[in-house]
Amino acid sequence: MGNFWLQEKHTDGYEVKWKIDGIIHSEKTKYQELAIVETREWGRALILDGALQTSEKDEFIYHEMIVHPAMCTHPKPEKVLIIGGGDGGTLREVVKHSRVNEIDMVEIDERVIENSKKYLPSLACAFDDQRVSLHVEDGVWFVKKFSGKYDVVIVDSSDPVGPAVQLFSRDFYQDVFAALKNDGLVVVQSESPFFYQETFKSVYKNISTVFPYTFTYLVPIPTYVSGPWSFTIGSKKHDPLKLTSDREHIPGLKYYNEGIHTSVFCLPSFIKEMLK
Amino acid sequence: MGNFWLQEKHTDGYEVKWKIDGIIHSEKTKYQELAIVETREWGRALILDGALQTSEKDEFIYHEMIVHPAMCTHPKPEKVLIIGGGDGGTLREVVKHSRVNEIDMVEIDERVIENSKKYLPSLACAFDDQRVSLHVEDGVWFVKKFSGKYDVVIVDSSDPVGPAVQLFSRDFYQDVFAALKNDGLVVVQSESPFFYQETFKSVYKNISTVFPYTFTYLVPIPTYVSGPWSFTIGSKKHDPLKLTSDREHIPGLKYYNEGIHTSVFCLPSFIKEMLK
Repeated sequence: MGNFWLQEKHTDGYEVKWKIDGIIHSEKTKYQELAIVETREWGRALILDGALQTSEKDEFIYHEMIVHPAMCTHPKPEKVLIIGGGDGGTLREVVKHSRVNEIDMVEIDERVIENSKKYLPSLACAFDDQRVSLHVEDGVWFVKKFSGKYDVVIVDSSDPVGPAVQLFSRDFYQDVFAALKNDGLVVVQSESPFFYQETFKSVYKNISTVFPYTFTYLVPIPTYVSGPWSFTIGSKKHDPLKLTSDREHIPGLKYYNEGIHTSVFCLPSFIKEMLK
Repeated sequence: MGNFWLQEKHTDGYEVKWKIDGIIHSEKTKYQELAIVETREWGRALILDGALQTSEKDEFIYHEMIVHPAMCTHPKPEKVLIIGGGDGGTLREVVKHSRVNEIDMVEIDERVIENSKKYLPSLACAFDDQRVSLHVEDGVWFVKKFSGKYDVVIVDSSDPVGPAVQLFSRDFYQDVFAALKNDGLVVVQSESPFFYQETFKSVYKNISTVFPYTFTYLVPIPTYVSGPWSFTIGSKKHDPLKLTSDREHIPGLKYYNEGIHTSVFCLPSFIKEMLK
């Protein structure tokens, strides 16, 4: 389709262009502009409000790394809540944990789920798992309904603009804290420490004022901005660097392994300074 | 200066644009097109043949991480050879090691050094160190002159196009092997495992056919392509994961620390597969 590019303006001084070989589908949902495109570099990708969310070829990095460090930190993750993640990639990784017996998944935009099922089946392949209850509503309100229910909460949000902005607030983390059991933990994607430094720092600060233990880890994700991407864990009790020996081993992963689990929490000195 | 951008075409499907607020200097040297520009995002940057080489604001990552993992792996790095690195950032990090008593630095393009001294003084600040001998010539030929001389060789090359192409060959690594002492080691920048996968794999393969021990490590560098950047160590004896207790501690670094030293060698599963 000629010289067609997705151009992402990350800052006033940094733009990235991905060659688009085809528009598979596009629509305006109740919440956002949605497109499924064929990229030259990464296969099919989901675009929301002009920002690349996930691609077939590199999505394993983001999805394995938002799920397994937290899930493997908890010795017995039985009840899990996923907020966001309508493409299904996070859910696909969570169902690999056999100790899980109940998964609530809350996505505000049903059209993200429907289009992912139709056009990104390698991601949206676990919605039929018997343990999953799907809730099409706002995660910010959903989480308020529960007290002491979950072992692990995973906040797989888009950037803090549009529908996701509340998911980065201290009030929301307090509601998540209340919804977790006494030894529960939450993991959130917390943006780039270089390009979205204020968000990165405020997530850490907000979580650490609510949870007794806060851990940041870094993972470079090729379809996001350059440099490392960050995730942040808020934990009531468990420490990702002190794993119990009986935790579940998940076979067949492409990114996560035991060495990665420990090493991603080792932060460069300037990031440690940033979080002081 | 209006709407002026450095546009880097990394692949047919991936381009990056950095806003340029000013051209400080530009010239055609004997070897390449050289420019010093003021970027919106990263301060002053050195551009060679249209590719961003190093910037004031993120250069500490690349330079600390090409130098200290190798230098701290060797228990007594006294004689060091730097090939390339005309901007001076690698040299600045090497001179922080007090056990070093002789540094040969070989840069093919004198104009890179001269312009870095003039326009990037925070990088090119160690050329006057008493231990440094500067050689303006081709590193490929320089290294052939020596046998068993060096403890550590650092290959700080640009991409394998133009003057740097020989620095990625097996023949060159054999000459480096010969120039090293019996317990010497070499470190090279080995490109992106995503966007330049063939180079990444061939460097690993070439080094591992010459050296008994080969170690790859990953570091995300914001001014380079997205995802991780790679470095590869070829070692005759020393193992970066078995550090001697008396190694020198280098204070005041912004990226490198003991946790980083160990963790960067933990590779994601798909990278381990790629290197099999």
